[in-house]
Amino acid sequence: MTQATTANLQKLLKERYGNHPPALNLINETIATLLDHRSVRSYTNQPLPAQTLETLVAAAQSAATSSNLQVWSVVAVQDQGRKDRLAALAGNQAHISACPLFLVWIADLSRLQTLGDKNQKAYDGLDYFEMMMVATIDSALAAQNAAVAAESLGLGTVYIGGIRNKPEEVAQELGLPARSFATFGMCVGYPDPALPTGIKPRLPQASVLHHEQYDASVHAKIIADYNASMETFSVEQGMKTSQPWELQSLHRVRGPEALSGRDRLVAALNKLGFDMK
Amino acid sequence: MTQATTANLQKLLKERYGNHPPALNLINETIATLLDHRSVRSYTNQPLPAQTLETLVAAAQSAATSSNLQVWSVVAVQDQGRKDRLAALAGNQAHISACPLFLVWIADLSRLQTLGDKNQKAYDGLDYFEMMMVATIDSALAAQNAAVAAESLGLGTVYIGGIRNKPEEVAQELGLPARSFATFGMCVGYPDPALPTGIKPRLPQASVLHHEQYDASVHAKIIADYNASMETFSVEQGMKTSQPWELQSLHRVRGPEALSGRDRLVAALNKLGFDMK
Repeated sequence: MTQATTANLQKLLKERYGNHPPALNLINETIATLLDHRSVRSYTNQPLPAQTLETLVAAAQSAATSSNLQVWSVVAVQDQGRKDRLAALAGNQAHISACPLFLVWIADLSRLQTLGDKNQKAYDGLDYFEMMMVATIDSALAAQNAAVAAESLGLGTVYIGGIRNKPEEVAQELGLPARSFATFGMCVGYPDPALPTGIKPRLPQASVLHHEQYDASVHAKIIADYNASMETFSVEQGMKTSQPWELQSLHRVRGPEALSGRDRLVAALNKLGFDMK
Repeated sequence: MTQATTANLQKLLKERYGNHPPALNLINETIATLLDHRSVRSYTNQPLPAQTLETLVAAAQSAATSSNLQVWSVVAVQDQGRKDRLAALAGNQAHISACPLFLVWIADLSRLQTLGDKNQKAYDGLDYFEMMMVATIDSALAAQNAAVAAESLGLGTVYIGGIRNKPEEVAQELGLPARSFATFGMCVGYPDPALPTGIKPRLPQASVLHHEQYDASVHAKIIADYNASMETFSVEQGMKTSQPWELQSLHRVRGPEALSGRDRLVAALNKLGFDMK
């Protein structure tokens, strides 16, 4: 766990924001843990402490959930064959095979359907897009609490959006019931000290934080600075980057061909029982 | 901040899980903060410490974001008139008017559109449902980090899903650009000690945590126990509940009339510039 000192806070903020960090002085162990996040894709062979999984789930269940509906679930995968198959389905991400614990977070309206059938009550609200959103948001809030708990224990995590590349195949692999789908995966393991990862710089606060009303004029002005911060970071991390952050990001959303199959997500969700009216 | 002791852990787990808490022993300040969450809807007049907002945003920006696209924003509302108007739009939720800081979390594809226009690059990927999901998930991960940071500072929070009741009016009030929308709000303030809130019990872990594959047979078996835990909690909190949790929850999803206007969320998002192919 990170030592919560003001000196450490300044270091964390400089790494997070590059050359123009906000001047902050509120710090404690939890805030230090949050600011110290980095995605970890290489793990040691050290097994996780007993009860790690249950502790992460207790943290996840402690997150807010809309109307206490708790429309999410998580499937914990440790079987090597299943991790390998999920790694392949998610675009050949080797860290899924390598991590000791792979969590697949589920937007789960199936539980309410089961209870509705049992009680012979209508659940027509589940057919609406709103409820799919509630389930997706619930799963994200839960997962983030689990990620924070994991990092507070010295573990590393990385989210896997690639689990949405082939939703039907993932659902079949995990035996998911109708009206549930995998929103994202999460690798968990002890970070390999031989392959350390740096804290990735983010956009200046002025780009994401607006006061009273959204100020759209800010973006163009401050992006150049951020492109430079990201370039410095990439060089430091030995990453190959051919272009500035804004062009890389635009390349990622240039069209359906860049979405790794997720351009058909609506059709996949329909097949998995989500009506999304 | 909660004292991180094993005795305290047992107390937190008993409140979170009722009569059958999981037996856990991993504890630290951060995990204690996570487990200690409760929604807070009543606040003192004590102003927030200087830099609270910027600290919460730094925590939020430290959360994972898909492909580092950072497709979220947050609008911080402190103006009383605007808080009152948003309270009305969200279904007359008085705590929005009462809290010193109201954060509106935005799924924000507009920044990439702005950068695409500036660079004369295509961004046809933004028209896909997948990117709306990425933005929604990004905003949720960011918001949850902010909530955790707030609670670590002794502040209380409550998520406001009602901000999706009238998406176009909320967008107009906040001056949101096309391709952005408010996923949810969050009240922040010091909890009123005169109106303490308990830790709400959640479903047994067996109901949300599945191993290797989803086990749909578990739900019907364990719900009775949870209904009882929730009834005990409701009595303790002086809440009026006429029926067990499962029936309350089914009532909440009985049909479009129970969705507080959010049955038209797709049409609203289309109007706000989301194509969602």
